[in-house]
Amino acid sequence: MGHLLAEPHHDGSPLHLDDEAPALGSRVGVRVRTHTDNLPDAIWVRTVEDAEPFFAPLAEESREGETVWWRGEVHVRNPVTSYRFMLVYGDSYSWLNQSGVHDRDVSDAGDFVVSIHPPAPDWARDAVVYQVFPDRFARSASADDRPVPAWAKPAQWGDDPIHVGPDTPLQFYGGDLDGIREHLDHMGAVGADTLYLTPVFPGESNHRYNASTFDHVDDLLGGDDAYRRLIDAVHERGWRMLGDFTANHTGDTHEWFRAAAGGQEPERGFYYFDADGAHEGWKGYETLPKLDHRSAELTARMQRVVRHWLEFGLDGWRIDVANMTGRHVTEDEAHRVARDIRATSTAVHPDAFVVGEHNHDAAGDLDGDGWHGTMNYSGFSFPVWSWLRDPDHPVPSFGLPTGVARRTGPQAIGALREFQGRFGWRAVEQSWNILGSHDSPRIRTLTGSPARHEVAVAMQFTLPGIPMVFAGDELGLEGTDGEDSRRTMPWDDLPAGLTETYRHYADLRRAHVALRRGSLRWVHVGDDLLVYLREHPDGDVMVTLSRGGSPALELPDPYPDVPAYDEPTATVVRV
Amino acid sequence: MGHLLAEPHHDGSPLHLDDEAPALGSRVGVRVRTHTDNLPDAIWVRTVEDAEPFFAPLAEESREGETVWWRGEVHVRNPVTSYRFMLVYGDSYSWLNQSGVHDRDVSDAGDFVVSIHPPAPDWARDAVVYQVFPDRFARSASADDRPVPAWAKPAQWGDDPIHVGPDTPLQFYGGDLDGIREHLDHMGAVGADTLYLTPVFPGESNHRYNASTFDHVDDLLGGDDAYRRLIDAVHERGWRMLGDFTANHTGDTHEWFRAAAGGQEPERGFYYFDADGAHEGWKGYETLPKLDHRSAELTARMQRVVRHWLEFGLDGWRIDVANMTGRHVTEDEAHRVARDIRATSTAVHPDAFVVGEHNHDAAGDLDGDGWHGTMNYSGFSFPVWSWLRDPDHPVPSFGLPTGVARRTGPQAIGALREFQGRFGWRAVEQSWNILGSHDSPRIRTLTGSPARHEVAVAMQFTLPGIPMVFAGDELGLEGTDGEDSRRTMPWDDLPAGLTETYRHYADLRRAHVALRRGSLRWVHVGDDLLVYLREHPDGDVMVTLSRGGSPALELPDPYPDVPAYDEPTATVVRV
Repeated sequence: MGHLLAEPHHDGSPLHLDDEAPALGSRVGVRVRTHTDNLPDAIWVRTVEDAEPFFAPLAEESREGETVWWRGEVHVRNPVTSYRFMLVYGDSYSWLNQSGVHDRDVSDAGDFVVSIHPPAPDWARDAVVYQVFPDRFARSASADDRPVPAWAKPAQWGDDPIHVGPDTPLQFYGGDLDGIREHLDHMGAVGADTLYLTPVFPGESNHRYNASTFDHVDDLLGGDDAYRRLIDAVHERGWRMLGDFTANHTGDTHEWFRAAAGGQEPERGFYYFDADGAHEGWKGYETLPKLDHRSAELTARMQRVVRHWLEFGLDGWRIDVANMTGRHVTEDEAHRVARDIRATSTAVHPDAFVVGEHNHDAAGDLDGDGWHGTMNYSGFSFPVWSWLRDPDHPVPSFGLPTGVARRTGPQAIGALREFQGRFGWRAVEQSWNILGSHDSPRIRTLTGSPARHEVAVAMQFTLPGIPMVFAGDELGLEGTDGEDSRRTMPWDDLPAGLTETYRHYADLRRAHVALRRGSLRWVHVGDDLLVYLREHPDGDVMVTLSRGGSPALELPDPYPDVPAYDEPTATVVRV
Repeated sequence: MGHLLAEPHHDGSPLHLDDEAPALGSRVGVRVRTHTDNLPDAIWVRTVEDAEPFFAPLAEESREGETVWWRGEVHVRNPVTSYRFMLVYGDSYSWLNQSGVHDRDVSDAGDFVVSIHPPAPDWARDAVVYQVFPDRFARSASADDRPVPAWAKPAQWGDDPIHVGPDTPLQFYGGDLDGIREHLDHMGAVGADTLYLTPVFPGESNHRYNASTFDHVDDLLGGDDAYRRLIDAVHERGWRMLGDFTANHTGDTHEWFRAAAGGQEPERGFYYFDADGAHEGWKGYETLPKLDHRSAELTARMQRVVRHWLEFGLDGWRIDVANMTGRHVTEDEAHRVARDIRATSTAVHPDAFVVGEHNHDAAGDLDGDGWHGTMNYSGFSFPVWSWLRDPDHPVPSFGLPTGVARRTGPQAIGALREFQGRFGWRAVEQSWNILGSHDSPRIRTLTGSPARHEVAVAMQFTLPGIPMVFAGDELGLEGTDGEDSRRTMPWDDLPAGLTETYRHYADLRRAHVALRRGSLRWVHVGDDLLVYLREHPDGDVMVTLSRGGSPALELPDPYPDVPAYDEPTATVVRV
């Protein structure tokens, strides 16, 4: 048949789940779409309540042509309740969970989940995020007046970044906040409406993830006044702005750590010192002392930081190293810290957004009352990279000791669906679809061609998740790793690159609610061709992606046939 | 090729993991077996430490013919540290985790785990357990002298159990503890050495899971004196004995509940009463009031019960409804309760064994410092049932609204391996391999033939896990559900049944340490034929299982070729 249109389907989107944040103890309506070519005799929903499985039957609700809808209810017994469907065929059955249909028994690892906790705010789910690494984006005229700090190794705008060795964090280009403000039109040209800045607190490095204080903005960036001007300018355009906060560690130059190293309480208790006075550092780096979240006073200080900058004007936070934050050997305060940061944020702005960095399997850390979402490397970036990587040359990876493996469609989408099952539908939709960041290779380098890069952009904007664009990707900048990717924006001779492409997909995403809130139903997963539907009560969209060399595909009405493609191609059509 | 002998392999057995309970912070040696026909260019071990992935290389250690061993180390950063292997082939890679080799990216759900917590005691891991449901096993002469209690509906020995309707829990056959003691020779004939009795505390039912007290043994069973005689007789044979304790709920006739219902403290706090004075019951049953483990006094009382009966003579506990114990809506005290019961038990007997009932996905509840293992329905019983069920007639299931589906070898073993990945190697080895229990259909009914039943027994005794035999299975008793399976033992005319078969496999398991501690390496997974190796430094064993109608399989030296089998067949050979 070549297509999957007869496969039973459910996900957390409005066609399938009546309420994405039902009340504890309530029963929420769930619907399964089936096809007359593959019609179950019965469907049961299996919930796990207080860790015990329960079954309840679904009933046929309606028939529209070959589509048969079934309806049932999930008892929302726990704050996060998992469920899946048993599809009965004669004397046998299959399971339908968030990773697909399985003709054998499965564990609970891929179950659907429904959470009672409020979703991320609409603005954040509808956003197109633009990430700026301040040292490398733009210098205002006033940057020339600032003295270069003692730790810094000055570089000329346009120089290649140093990406190996001790000078890597010290190379200093001097981009600043007024520089960013002066180029907000460009961010608009890309189609973005939410500015995410990596840290702006002082730190003796170009990345500033080794903060010396959380109390004020680095004077090298223009200080609090420039931050004020930038936030106001962003808000004047009706846009939003997110900060970047490291809750896992500080720099060893941080005022708290200096006090702690001097033996001062309560700061001594903020860090992990051993009997010999040595301290624990992030991944062993002594310059990045790890915070001990068992300290109540630390919690209070963190709350003050989180609160202050939201009151100052931020609309939310990206939390650095969120996966490790609060986790240390035998201690695990991670969920409490996440809950605390979110609650502190939403107490200031009810519609604050909090996204946690997590570059692998975030299952269990999402869908609760902590991080709204994550930077979805494992469930988005890595599958996309593996399908669209340059087929002819090895390409670098992020977080692996090898390069990115080239995968077929079934392999790449198998991984994507497995992670959707692990994270949960809503958590995926609230997470960032990233083709790259300041920590990874650039997508242009990974794909090796503008045409494959363009298909990657189509995936970024049409798969569930919030597109997050690392500034410069739209220009086709290159980079083999995170450090190398932190290249300066070539304002003097700005290439068009794919700026129009990004803008096109950003507009499409705004135009079609299906691309922001719709289901994800796979129509075809071939080695070189992917076809999927985003379905929503307000209209459906079909996305066709070829990485080149893909065969033609016939589809039944109302879906358009897909021609053979020699070259990488993406199309998005209403159906 | 037909066989999987070239597939890279690792598990938690001694050939692959240097120490099954390494110290926190140590580095434990790990080994991967590879084959020259499928030799990786490099292997990396990926650990997850404080929720962050780390990679370390393995090095080739030795070559023996076509076998190439690689060796590396896992940093035991956390009490339970997960890891998996990246197998690099040219410009691509695969992952090796506890569920097998995957040629795409995978989540952490199937990672290997290593735990710092002590393993279950050797006696429990080496055991063959025999489960007795006291009301149905045997009546001593003194049983005739006891008055039938008011709640009971007397039945004649040999009557069919009532298995539907209100009389089900009231039907009373009057089996007792002296009756069990008088038939210990039979338990020996089956090859068992550990007696597990379902509850012996008084309760107004035949199953006694609705305890009225935990302070003494039911007089209907012979009271504490008969329990004393039975435990002593078991110990005289060098055997062990396990109790059954319900920590999730009591009966509504329990002395604690009567006090609580009367408004008495502290007992009122042991249960969940709502504002109207109604109480929460297990699965809604008012007669089984659920315990609220947030009560410190309840914890103290539970500890006294656990301690008392171990001091009385028990060697450990099976904990009823362990999955739900301590879990209620927004509260989750489950791990604390499990840890407390285990610690209280091992404080009395350092080699006490504690197994928790869990009939689905126990991931996260095992491999810590709580339950040593579980009743492995999901990772053993269900896969075995699905492969060996009667192919010609529908069969009942346990916990599903449908019957058992008939599955091929790859489907059944796919499920088995997925659950091994979820539970962890050691937790599987310490869990009970059950073909049925007092809660499920009988294996004879499920398989529909002695020949398939015999293959099921071979799996029970040769796959990782502790064989747990429900009394009567060896006779070929039938039963369509848990209640119907609680049939009386026909002592007057005892059929031979498969008693010799059970004894044979029990002897084999004792004779070959590979069957108790060895690896599990799949050689062939066909629709109708399964072949696996259990490998151990002290010798390897090959197990061949056919469900009938399986083709011949050629294997390279030193493994014997497998002939075609028309009929269900099991063989176990040293290789």
